[in-house]
Amino acid sequence: MENQIIILRLGHRLPRDERISTHVCLVARAFGASGVFYSGQHDSSLESSVSSIVKNLGGNFSISYEKNYSNLIKKLKNDGFSVVHLTMYGIPLPEKLDKVKSNKKLLVIVGAEQVPKNVYELADFNIAITNQPHSEVAALAVFLDRISDGYYLNNIGFKDAKISIKPNEMGKQIIR
Amino acid sequence: MENQIIILRLGHRLPRDERISTHVCLVARAFGASGVFYSGQHDSSLESSVSSIVKNLGGNFSISYEKNYSNLIKKLKNDGFSVVHLTMYGIPLPEKLDKVKSNKKLLVIVGAEQVPKNVYELADFNIAITNQPHSEVAALAVFLDRISDGYYLNNIGFKDAKISIKPNEMGKQIIR
Repeated sequence: MENQIIILRLGHRLPRDERISTHVCLVARAFGASGVFYSGQHDSSLESSVSSIVKNLGGNFSISYEKNYSNLIKKLKNDGFSVVHLTMYGIPLPEKLDKVKSNKKLLVIVGAEQVPKNVYELADFNIAITNQPHSEVAALAVFLDRISDGYYLNNIGFKDAKISIKPNEMGKQIIR
Repeated sequence: MENQIIILRLGHRLPRDERISTHVCLVARAFGASGVFYSGQHDSSLESSVSSIVKNLGGNFSISYEKNYSNLIKKLKNDGFSVVHLTMYGIPLPEKLDKVKSNKKLLVIVGAEQVPKNVYELADFNIAITNQPHSEVAALAVFLDRISDGYYLNNIGFKDAKISIKPNEMGKQIIR
């Protein structure tokens, strides 16, 4: 993948979103994004659990808190990023896939609960991963998998990993 | 999709897994599974929130508690189901995709925390959705999306829906 992909997780709430936001970050990393910004409540524990995965399993992946998400979106748009907001109210991904893939720099936004109206307006693409309610974690994973043409499904590890997994028909094999 | 797909969510814990298990169920529904069994702690609230989505947004989708997951796996194997266990320790999906897709009846297992060893042994396929730690919600979504060749990404609604979403470039449109 030559694309640069950054994720924005909106409206992190404690303790409610602890695990969901962690899953969002780990999905972002596993499917090739370079980092996550999150807004809402600051959460050092989220940051340290994500950083610890990166430290052990490798890759260049950052997590940063951003209080003012509107400013961040505007700044990244000025830097040449196209903005994709994943929402069940949007246009089905297959209709926009080629157009989205043609952008080399993407900011992908996933919300918690109610997403403010200005996010729909700031987005270049409001994209649905099915027009059904399910999960921002799932929506992000399917989106990243599809725009990378499944590249990360075959990824056997990241650069500088201290630990990696050897694929196995049955059981666990960890390489240190 | 002609395949019949059932999901087994292992080891549901309260309150820790409330939201993650809800996301697992909603992903299963949105991507065409016919139902979810869950083991671990019984949770009426999980069942009623999933049932309420089905009632409003349609489809045939059931949720049932199953205390003895090993018996359920064995019973479904006897009924002709092939068993897929999604785990970061397994074989990358692309290597097994055709083989898995050739099965008309699939039981797909996703765990919480530590998955007992006998699940790896009972499974016909231990499949990795990337060999990286991320999320059972994401793994299930990508798996179901890939085995259905993206069919549900274009699904505009389920049978008997009282509410559906009209895809929109910007904003929300709900049809009642």
